[in-house]
Parts: sequence; structure tokens; C-alpha cells
Amino acid sequence: MDHPDRLKRLQSALAEERLDGLLVTNLPNIRYLCGFTGSAAVLVVVAQGSCYFFTDGRYAEQAREEVLGAKIKVHRKAALAAASDWLAGRRKLGLKRLGAEGDHLSLAEGERLKKVLGAGVRLRQASPLVERQRMVKDAEEIGRLRQAVRLGASLFDIALKTIRPGVSEVRVAAEMEYAARQAGAEGMSFETIIAAGERSALPHGRASTAAIPARGFVVCDFGVILAGYCSDMTRTVYVGQPTGADREIYDAVREAQQAAVEAVQPGKPVGEVDRAARNVLKKKGLARYFTHSTGHGVGLEIHEAPRVAAAQNEILQPGMVITIEPGVYIPGRGGVRIEDMVVVKEQGCEVLTPVPKELMTI
Amino acid sequence: MDHPDRLKRLQSALAEERLDGLLVTNLPNIRYLCGFTGSAAVLVVVAQGSCYFFTDGRYAEQAREEVLGAKIKVHRKAALAAASDWLAGRRKLGLKRLGAEGDHLSLAEGERLKKVLGAGVRLRQASPLVERQRMVKDAEEIGRLRQAVRLGASLFDIALKTIRPGVSEVRVAAEMEYAARQAGAEGMSFETIIAAGERSALPHGRASTAAIPARGFVVCDFGVILAGYCSDMTRTVYVGQPTGADREIYDAVREAQQAAVEAVQPGKPVGEVDRAARNVLKKKGLARYFTHSTGHGVGLEIHEAPRVAAAQNEILQPGMVITIEPGVYIPGRGGVRIEDMVVVKEQGCEVLTPVPKELMTI
Repeated sequence: MDHPDRLKRLQSALAEERLDGLLVTNLPNIRYLCGFTGSAAVLVVVAQGSCYFFTDGRYAEQAREEVLGAKIKVHRKAALAAASDWLAGRRKLGLKRLGAEGDHLSLAEGERLKKVLGAGVRLRQASPLVERQRMVKDAEEIGRLRQAVRLGASLFDIALKTIRPGVSEVRVAAEMEYAARQAGAEGMSFETIIAAGERSALPHGRASTAAIPARGFVVCDFGVILAGYCSDMTRTVYVGQPTGADREIYDAVREAQQAAVEAVQPGKPVGEVDRAARNVLKKKGLARYFTHSTGHGVGLEIHEAPRVAAAQNEILQPGMVITIEPGVYIPGRGGVRIEDMVVVKEQGCEVLTPVPKELMTI
Repeated sequence: MDHPDRLKRLQSALAEERLDGLLVTNLPNIRYLCGFTGSAAVLVVVAQGSCYFFTDGRYAEQAREEVLGAKIKVHRKAALAAASDWLAGRRKLGLKRLGAEGDHLSLAEGERLKKVLGAGVRLRQASPLVERQRMVKDAEEIGRLRQAVRLGASLFDIALKTIRPGVSEVRVAAEMEYAARQAGAEGMSFETIIAAGERSALPHGRASTAAIPARGFVVCDFGVILAGYCSDMTRTVYVGQPTGADREIYDAVREAQQAAVEAVQPGKPVGEVDRAARNVLKKKGLARYFTHSTGHGVGLEIHEAPRVAAAQNEILQPGMVITIEPGVYIPGRGGVRIEDMVVVKEQGCEVLTPVPKELMTI
């Protein structure tokens, strides 16, 4: 990963925001900027100068192995306290306006920090500069996402083998998660959703101990973390023979999902992708059952920018990786969701998820 | 659970702290106080008045089923924004000094809140009042912890059946986690540690894809969440025939753990429990390899107050539930940790973990 280049681009962005530096406390941002994968660190990025990485003794070795582009400072104190003290004693750096990640610093931490820094440094909440940088993935990141998606997709075969009437949802999830870990995943990217029968109408129907009924939809939404990057996919299968009405619901969601995939174009606002899916469901009279947004960015975090939702104006750019996941949920009856991950290209997009979308019956 | 009584006790504590109310934003505290198990809520506790529970539409139904002792307010906005607006319009409540949970509110949230509340309300960081209340468990909580410990302990049998030379650590963890979910656990209370051979010298050796070697210690540290409450236990087994020196290390840790269990007495500071374990290891020349503290409170969270560590002065009280988990870690060679959960009684303590501590060989 080209961490030094990422740091340089952040330094330019800081200058544009009229900030002398940024105190980075959001761990995925720290990982993105300098490669550190541990769970206790702070990064100080000086706009016209160097970057300084702070951690405590537990991570000394790991920091030396992983951190690129920043000077490593290991202290006995917690990273934020060490960084605060260090900043307070470095008047020469000229950090008069220091940006902070307001969503990733607690009120208690922020107030302690202001006290330690004193009147010479003005702490200002910065806009999400690193999160914006992370929206557009480079080739190496797309490579990692592709591998995560491939491993994630292989778990769907396990689901197909395990889903049977009478088997508990949690058993299906456990078999998938077991296979993921055997294959080297660091973990699941979120709690596996296996929602069968009436439970398929719950958009976030985490696998329960309920048994899969003899007939109906089963929504399977799952992902893995591999080498730090997340995958996310959903397929909905049918146990038994689908009624004509159920097949119509499935086909409508499939058509909506396809329309949204086709709407992905660099230069367009993300809201148009959402509208493409919603318009199809509107024509079928199902729009009121599509109760969430169409998708979200994926990368080091399972949910990151941009949000693919109505009225969102973020412009699609080549290298963005987003999910496309419309769904229809009819209370008391059941639900369908179909989700792929796609990468925005110079023209349109490439679907990363290598799994067919025809309705499969079990 | 007697939520109304918990709220009443908090109201008394607020009066003592000279606070007119508390804005509770830490979700485990909200669950403790009013029973809500969802993931988006804010609770406003008025010292001389009522309690108000805020959530958004997704949780309307769940709030009505779960919340006890507080008036439910469902808004379209996020809970914190709704609570802020509501507070700003309720001058009559007389909330001049409002406490906030400074570690559970972001800097951005805190500053927005101050702006909305205006000059009439002074937002003050409160001490961890609810966390202190949660340290002492009532009979119902101890009952739930007992059940979680029992389910957790049953997973050790799975570990014993699965640990064999050549089997990956991650396979052992996966079998245990699979069994936990089948048995109704909501999840594991932390990432399962299976650390074999030289890896047993890593105090937090999360199960890896490494194969269990033909000979050496295997540290197994794991727990479940059942009905909201966490379990936590560690046993260390030996693959092959232990050398005399390895057996001595094991026996020293066992003796240290027993000494710490026997040191638990209501009225004593927690630091003495830590010292009891450390003194045994000092006599054996192993104290420098015991690199963490002796234990921690367990309840709705896997790590909660009190910390059982040197120089901690918290006084043990009947009803506290803590772990006792000394360990010895010799780099390049291996490590041993033995951990029970205990509940402090009127006299001494009761060990909750129903698993023998003799060295088992595989």
C-alpha cells in the first residue's frame, strides 16, 4: 500500500482546509494512512512537516513492522495522552489550528486535550478528510476487496448445502463462519443474517435459533474480513416451490437490482443509483416495502462513504466500491434482498460478486 | 430485573453529586437502567422527577416491549438529537446542571448538544455513577451470570475433544463457537483465545491458523453472552507429557490463582487480591512473567469495574463478580493462565466456574 502518498494527499487537503495539522484518532483512518493494524494509536499529521505515530509499549514491535511514512513514538502512557503531551511541548511545529476527528474523540478526551494544549493551539473539528480519501480505492485495495469478495462468495455454497427445512438459522451461519475462519478470514464483517420464512421480512434478521420452515424465502446476507478488507453480499433462496406471487416479488427485486447496477456511472450523483432501484419497485407497486437505502461504500470498514441513498449528492468516481442491495419486505409474509459489490470504472461498473442471481430453490 | 429501583438509586446519587439530571448515552448503562437491548437510545434521568427514554422509529416496538421505569419518546431523528431538542424545550424541568457521560459522547455530539441546550443548561461531565452501581450485582444478575458461566464452561469439553497435534487453533475455536450458538448464546463475549506451543506465551493469542504442535501448553480463554450477561474463563492444558519444569510453572500459576481466590473478602481493597497472586509468583521467581493484572469485573460487559490490579483501592463488596486470572508467559517457551469467575459473598467468595484446575494432558 502506498501509505506515504496517502499521507501527502492528506497534507494537501489540510492546507486547503486552513489547518496546520490533524490529530487522527479513528483507527481505520490510521491503518489507511500508515498501515498500523493494532488497536491503540494516534497519528499527528503536520500539514507542512512530518507525521508522528504514537502507541504504547504493547505495540512497539508491531509498529516497527507495520508503520510507513510516520515517525514512531512509543510511550508508557496511552497514545492520546502521549500525543497531547508531545504536542504541548512542540510549539516550534507552529500548530495553531489543529484539526480533530470530532466523531472519533470523546467529550472527555477532547476536554483533556484542550487543557493540555493550552491557549496557543486552537482545536477545531475537521471535516471527514480521510474518510473522503478512502472512498476512492487504489489498485491494491481493489485487489484485496476482490479477494475478500471471492472468499465471501464461497460461503454461499456452504449455505446452499446447509439450508434445509428444520435446520436452525444459527446452524447455517455457524457452518459459514466456520468455513470462513478455516479459509483464513480474520472474522465476519458483520453478524451473519440468515432469515427464513416470515423472518425474511426483517431487513436485519440476524440468524436465530428458529428452524427453517418447509416453505418460503431465506435471506442470506454475510461477509468476511480478509487482510483488513470487508466483503458484503446477499442472496435470497426459496425453500420449496415458490408461488407465482413470491416469484414476482423476487423478479421485481432482481430487476431493481439490475437497474441500479446499470445506473452506476462516474460523474453521476449516488442518489440516481438509489432512484433507479426504487423506480422499478414503484412500477410494481412494491416501493413502500423497500425501507432502506440502496447501498454503501465498503473497504476497511463494512459501512463507509458514500451512502447510496435518495437525495445524496456524492458524485460517483472510478475506484469507488459500493454495494447495490435493494430489498422488499412484506410483514407477516417474507422478504427478498439481492446484493452485489461493484467497483466504479471509467465507464459504468464491474460487478465483483461472482454468484448468479436467478432464484434458486432448495 | 428491578429497573425502577435502579433508576431510583441513580436519582439519589445524582442529588449527592449536585446534578439536576443525567444524560445516559452508554448503551450498557441504558440496558441496566431500563431494560432496553437495542442499539440506538438515550435516557434522560431527572434527579427530582421522571426518566425519559428516546429512540427512533426502528425501535418503537422493541422499546414498548422492553423499557421499564421511563417514559418512551419515539422520534424520526436520531435519539441524541431528539433528546437534545426535547431538553432545550423543557425549561420547566429545571435542569441547570446536566451531567453527561464524557467517555460515551463524542466531541462532535457534545458540542452540538451544548449549542442546542444554550446558556441556561450547564453540561458537566459526571463521574461514572451507573458503572459504580453496576459493580454490585443483584440476585437476578448473579443468576444470569451463573447460567452464562455454565454454558461457557460446557465449551471446554468441546476444546478437550478437539485439541490434537496438527489441528489448527482456529478449528478448535470454531467448534467451540459453533456449540455456543447452538446452545443459544447470543455470541462470544470476546474473540476466543486458543494459543498453543510458543504462542501460549502471548497473553492475547487469538486463535490463529497455526497447527497445534506435538508438545506444549495450550491456553484456552473464552466466554459467551447469554441473556445479555458475559462469561469469561481460562484453562491451560498440555499436549504430550509435560517436563518437570513445565509442570512447575503450571503448579505455580495454580497456586497463585488459589491464593488470589482465597484473598477475596468483602471490605478489602481489590489490590490485595492482585498482591496475593503476585506474591506466590514472586516466591517462585516468576513474578516478572506475570505481565497483566489479576482480574476485572464482569456483567453486561466483559470488562467492567472494578479492575483487580495493583494499587487499586476499590473495596470488595458482596455481589461483585470478578475474574481471577493470573498467568505466566515466558517468551519463546510458553505460557499458562488459569481463570475463574467468582462472586463476592458476605464471607469470602464463591467460585462460579465449575471446571477442575488440575493440569490436564492430551
